[in-house]
Amino acid sequence: MATQLVKALHAKGYIIRQVMNRTPESARTLAETVGSQWTTSPEEIKKADIYLYAVSDAILPEMIHRNPRKEGLHVHTAGSMPLTLFDGEKKRAGVFYPLQTFSKQKVVDFAEIPLFIEANNNTDSQLLRQIAETLSRKVFNADSQQRQQLHLAAVFACNFTNHLFAIAEQLLKDANLPFEVLRPLIEETIEKTTTLSPPEAQTGPAIRNDLNVMQKHIEQLAAHPQWQEIYRMISKSIKSTT
Amino acid sequence: MATQLVKALHAKGYIIRQVMNRTPESARTLAETVGSQWTTSPEEIKKADIYLYAVSDAILPEMIHRNPRKEGLHVHTAGSMPLTLFDGEKKRAGVFYPLQTFSKQKVVDFAEIPLFIEANNNTDSQLLRQIAETLSRKVFNADSQQRQQLHLAAVFACNFTNHLFAIAEQLLKDANLPFEVLRPLIEETIEKTTTLSPPEAQTGPAIRNDLNVMQKHIEQLAAHPQWQEIYRMISKSIKSTT
Repeated sequence: MATQLVKALHAKGYIIRQVMNRTPESARTLAETVGSQWTTSPEEIKKADIYLYAVSDAILPEMIHRNPRKEGLHVHTAGSMPLTLFDGEKKRAGVFYPLQTFSKQKVVDFAEIPLFIEANNNTDSQLLRQIAETLSRKVFNADSQQRQQLHLAAVFACNFTNHLFAIAEQLLKDANLPFEVLRPLIEETIEKTTTLSPPEAQTGPAIRNDLNVMQKHIEQLAAHPQWQEIYRMISKSIKSTT
Repeated sequence: MATQLVKALHAKGYIIRQVMNRTPESARTLAETVGSQWTTSPEEIKKADIYLYAVSDAILPEMIHRNPRKEGLHVHTAGSMPLTLFDGEKKRAGVFYPLQTFSKQKVVDFAEIPLFIEANNNTDSQLLRQIAETLSRKVFNADSQQRQQLHLAAVFACNFTNHLFAIAEQLLKDANLPFEVLRPLIEETIEKTTTLSPPEAQTGPAIRNDLNVMQKHIEQLAAHPQWQEIYRMISKSIKSTT
């Protein structure tokens, strides 16, 4: 995400003063792209208006602590980390959270990516919104609790959805059919939610309470007890949602 | 599905001899569109080369039985019903199963819809393939067992996925955020499976075994014990897949 975000900010005319990365090659490569200095050690961090921490949750607290700069606006990009992480460390603090998965290779168009911002004072909140709006058309204020809920919702809608695809792929493999055959149906499932709310769009044996089909499916899953459990739990939840 | 399929076949030059529907308005409307006769009673079914049963699973056996015609090729369109349904009723039998959800209003482009065909003899299998290929570029032979597995895979990848969207929508509502914010991430989740297999594309706290985040998520779900169960089961299944 660091790479994509820094490139996007640079493209919009923001001056990237310095790039920090533990790996010199990574730091240098990105720095060269955006015409900035680079370093591998927090002790060498230069003075700037904004310090952007686009690092994993695991090392974020340590990085905040090791940055010797106290002045300026300190901003992290982590969906599930609270703003209070900066308490006692930095006076002006914020969050700038893009809700998307990133890879280094694929260039991302930020225009459609929802950006969630938070700051511990109004002026910085407005400053972050201004920056966010140069990148994206979808900027939201979200406090740490909202962001936490957003992260949980994304786990259900994306991480868990991907696992259901993995199960479907294996079931099809067992029947010598390629995953590709499901693609039009999957796309229609997504497409439907643009005109109907997900509960309205629900189809399948569970919502019809078609016990025969469900019993047959449970039997088909005999070799996969965990998937049987998932089948039962989600079917039960579908039935109790309506 | 009947409406869409009959219109598509008519558009490709196939002669629709007669439309049958229990509701006269429905029968007449479709018949007028494709220039055919219509009826509401099985007893009046005219002789034809092919009899297509595009009806719900629940009434399919009865419809097969009530059609007085024994000659010709009898074809149903149900994903989870076996070919043996015709045994003892009709000599020549087949299945013509389009893997897509249909609505009467929305015109469907069959070209991209996977069609799965089966017949109880080679000549009819080839005949059904020929018809299928005039409609779609994705025609597969699939026996009843493969079709059953396909149906189960579709329940996981589509029906259950839609329920995960419903859960995500409610979680976002609780945080005053619209479901729309998840759309780019959902689209990227689907998009990823075009270049990576679903297990390779897996991200999130479960695959990282991030116990802190998972514990926090379980606590956030305190008001929804069924969703907690789903969270635990899918996370466990993700961990044991790799």
